[in-house]
Amino acid sequence: MGMIDNKGVNRYVLLLTCLDRPGIINEITGALFDVNANIVHADQHSTDDEYGVFFIRIEFVLSGSSEGLDDLVDQLCASLSAEAKWYDLSQPLRCSILVSKEDHCLQELLYQWKSNSLNITVGSIISNHDQYGSLAQWYGVPFHYVSSESKHVSEEQIIEKTQSTDILIMARYMQILSSDFLSTYNRPVINIHHSFLPSFTGAKPYHQAFSRGVKLIGATAHYATEALDEGPIIIQKVSPVTHRDNINDLKQLGTHLEKQCLLDAIRAVSEHRVIIHDNKTIVF
Amino acid sequence: MGMIDNKGVNRYVLLLTCLDRPGIINEITGALFDVNANIVHADQHSTDDEYGVFFIRIEFVLSGSSEGLDDLVDQLCASLSAEAKWYDLSQPLRCSILVSKEDHCLQELLYQWKSNSLNITVGSIISNHDQYGSLAQWYGVPFHYVSSESKHVSEEQIIEKTQSTDILIMARYMQILSSDFLSTYNRPVINIHHSFLPSFTGAKPYHQAFSRGVKLIGATAHYATEALDEGPIIIQKVSPVTHRDNINDLKQLGTHLEKQCLLDAIRAVSEHRVIIHDNKTIVF
Amino acid sequence: MGMIDNKGVNRYVLLLTCLDRPGIINEITGALFDVNANIVHADQHSTDDEYGVFFIRIEFVLSGSSEGLDDLVDQLCASLSAEAKWYDLSQPLRCSILVSKEDHCLQELLYQWKSNSLNITVGSIISNHDQYGSLAQWYGVPFHYVSSESKHVSEEQIIEKTQSTDILIMARYMQILSSDFLSTYNRPVINIHHSFLPSFTGAKPYHQAFSRGVKLIGATAHYATEALDEGPIIIQKVSPVTHRDNINDLKQLGTHLEKQCLLDAIRAVSEHRVIIHDNKTIVF
Amino acid sequence: MGMIDNKGVNRYVLLLTCLDRPGIINEITGALFDVNANIVHADQHSTDDEYGVFFIRIEFVLSGSSEGLDDLVDQLCASLSAEAKWYDLSQPLRCSILVSKEDHCLQELLYQWKSNSLNITVGSIISNHDQYGSLAQWYGVPFHYVSSESKHVSEEQIIEKTQSTDILIMARYMQILSSDFLSTYNRPVINIHHSFLPSFTGAKPYHQAFSRGVKLIGATAHYATEALDEGPIIIQKVSPVTHRDNINDLKQLGTHLEKQCLLDAIRAVSEHRVIIHDNKTIVF
Repeated sequence: MGMIDNKGVNRYVLLLTCLDRPGIINEITGALFDVNANIVHADQHSTDDEYGVFFIRIEFVLSGSSEGLDDLVDQLCASLSAEAKWYDLSQPLRCSILVSKEDHCLQELLYQWKSNSLNITVGSIISNHDQYGSLAQWYGVPFHYVSSESKHVSEEQIIEKTQSTDILIMARYMQILSSDFLSTYNRPVINIHHSFLPSFTGAKPYHQAFSRGVKLIGATAHYATEALDEGPIIIQKVSPVTHRDNINDLKQLGTHLEKQCLLDAIRAVSEHRVIIHDNKTIVF
Repeated sequence: MGMIDNKGVNRYVLLLTCLDRPGIINEITGALFDVNANIVHADQHSTDDEYGVFFIRIEFVLSGSSEGLDDLVDQLCASLSAEAKWYDLSQPLRCSILVSKEDHCLQELLYQWKSNSLNITVGSIISNHDQYGSLAQWYGVPFHYVSSESKHVSEEQIIEKTQSTDILIMARYMQILSSDFLSTYNRPVINIHHSFLPSFTGAKPYHQAFSRGVKLIGATAHYATEALDEGPIIIQKVSPVTHRDNINDLKQLGTHLEKQCLLDAIRAVSEHRVIIHDNKTIVF
Repeated sequence: MGMIDNKGVNRYVLLLTCLDRPGIINEITGALFDVNANIVHADQHSTDDEYGVFFIRIEFVLSGSSEGLDDLVDQLCASLSAEAKWYDLSQPLRCSILVSKEDHCLQELLYQWKSNSLNITVGSIISNHDQYGSLAQWYGVPFHYVSSESKHVSEEQIIEKTQSTDILIMARYMQILSSDFLSTYNRPVINIHHSFLPSFTGAKPYHQAFSRGVKLIGATAHYATEALDEGPIIIQKVSPVTHRDNINDLKQLGTHLEKQCLLDAIRAVSEHRVIIHDNKTIVF
Repeated sequence: MGMIDNKGVNRYVLLLTCLDRPGIINEITGALFDVNANIVHADQHSTDDEYGVFFIRIEFVLSGSSEGLDDLVDQLCASLSAEAKWYDLSQPLRCSILVSKEDHCLQELLYQWKSNSLNITVGSIISNHDQYGSLAQWYGVPFHYVSSESKHVSEEQIIEKTQSTDILIMARYMQILSSDFLSTYNRPVINIHHSFLPSFTGAKPYHQAFSRGVKLIGATAHYATEALDEGPIIIQKVSPVTHRDNINDLKQLGTHLEKQCLLDAIRAVSEHRVIIHDNKTIVF
């Protein structure tokens, strides 16, 4: 995996997507060579279908400044008709965490952040429950309570409080974000759904799983989109269950899956390992 | 697990379900003691809900004959208002295997049977494809081809060919058995569905999984019921997949899940470890 | 699993081990029936070898007082030549947690305890590092620093601080407890070893794993005994790794295994699901 | 995974290892571009340590002939001080399978080969047991019995029978191949060890595992080297076990692990996904 040192000094990532044709890697690596970049990891994927799509993630080191990277990306986008972007790994991903009553995912993210094992900064905790003041204080993070009485009002408040973030994390936030909100925020929003999607969409998935008598329960970290529970899937995990596990057992077992799924997804996103294409993800 | 020696000489199993109340285990074990049974394994489960249901599987050895077991079961059923049945483990489960084009599950079952690691006998192979003659001959099993042109005719043929079986195994048999068939056959029918139910019911589940971009694929062994893919689940297994896996990869990875799921399910059923209750299974 | 409600009012557990012979379950359940106990779960196991050993865990409810249980246990021990003990599930297991520099297991235990999902009370945190004062204060637990300069002195201090505990948890405590300590403390001590035992005993297991090039790393929760890393194993978990994972990645992936292994082990022990026999465990 | 179509027409693989420095990928992809190769997959890895080592696997399509590939590899080896080799995916890997009494791995390999899901041809089955004649005949493969009375003689016979093979597969072959044999054969030999190495090296690993009371059993596919059970690991898998599983259960559960581990390893090797470095493997 090559998890990234929290500081990531002089480390950069290039993500690029374009139609496949001969010579692409050569062109990209040539351009990087010209700005004195040393490639430390390269991951490439092409789809198998008729009109193949090409995806690449290149992690590289620059000895000098990053001044030339904007031009490099512009040039590649032009010559390859590509979508591309570069990221500076020394700049942690700026997150806000949305949470409702269940706090296990929140706690995990805060702990991993503070123990320097996640390349993020948590700018705020936002909840429709008012119980997180002292926890936020302990971690030195602003806490904002937004009432769930009016979705319109609460979403406006969230937009306002998350101006300077790169990403929103729904860490068991049990409110549905509106299409308006998603298009206004217009940056990635990641959700943890407490089932193995597409099984058991919607409310109370553990009740649904218990009632169906499944022998495995799951969790799914995915991008939030307008269609609830149908956004691109980033990570899924499952855990075996038996006839002995009642609904409370499923919930308890599920907390581990949920927090580890969400954590792995945030890790991948914060290290710029994820490309979205066609409602699916490439996770390098 | 305590897998059962293929001969299981003098080994018996009692399966019993009744409403829970104090003293049940004492009554059952007392009755077994009275017929000189020595209990080697006992597994018990009670549901947590208001009107608790009690389930038990007892594996026991008899030094003498099994003559008294019918009476014992009758007596327990009467005094506990129970459903109960006893099984002689030295009598392997008599199976017929239904199969269509994909033969990996069939091959696995035949191999496990012949290497004495499954407490079954395979009485016949039945297929709507005619390719299995020489394989059946190699294993010394009758092969019956039933055309899939008329469901009515083919199901009548299957009924006729499976008179002396305890169970039907749909080992990737891609025809839907009608309600009429199921009620006429009136013994357990076990199916392997090539997805993690309830995700991707119906046709072409690997195509559905690929299209949704899931990060795990699964297989589900379950009892066939009138409602397709909705019968009680016995075993489920999953395998991780990535963006690199195309539909053929999913199918290939799936073959391992399918055959191991089906095998584990047949093992559990053939050792009389499964009780059906309320469209779910207790798998002891 | 039937995880136990934190209060467990009127719920009790009987653990019993004896040589196998006909009639044992009947005798035990008869004795329980006589004190008006209602059995809610029963788990039984017998070893397969010539001189079979019988193990049982019975969870039961008493409508009246537990006064008769001491006599019941004495009577069973006498008539069955058994070792047996009863436990009151409304009395959480009293733990002290020993920890060194790595705090992920400590944090997990504290969080699970405080969110009422673990049937324990944490009486104290003891460390050879002095960094845990404010965390202990946040959770309202006494913190004791014991210098690791003299093992003799530090172990005396630990003995003194853990008088009123039922169990010690070594949550990544990197000191070896002496035989003297273990025999003086004379109650269960549970350790988390950061490898899949018996692979990579001793120091720096992740370095050993990396150097051997294994494709899975593991963690093992086990009882601490005089022979380091050789006590009875309670829980083991593994996680896949690849050539891409360096030692730091292994450590990071390992933290999840370690904390979940230790948590599952403490859950099992606190619900009195574990019987030790012959340097192995039966985990019901 | 992108499993390879059995025919692999015009598909080639380049494997290359060298010391890391800027510009390598650019140089390799430039050279491929010059021979009109179209890259379909590229996988690259560099070690993190001070003197980084660079590994790459490139799968590419040629529209014309492969004539230029020898020169291309020579040129890259010279300019990069690399070790490199190219492979034609339309040429299946030529295998001989060595087997003793347990035939589950053998059966799996033969079945996967014949169902066209493994890019190999099986040239012969060689055993120190004489029971495989009719199975070999069924699959149309020569069978050679080699007595295990004299290792010297039997190894000479094996060398003679495997002249035109690319690889030997020890599919539960319970004889130790001598250093002399390995250096004479001088091509890859792959073994399946029935434990999670480095646990339980040597004989009777399931007995060892049972005796230690582990909660997971494993299997390891690795390259055979002079130091028994210490060669580079390719694939490892594990399966959970409990106190209920006796030694026979462990063996039975193990058969599934063993055959799937070995199969995955042979698949990886036959698709030229494995590079050995420093007694470890990179598995792309």
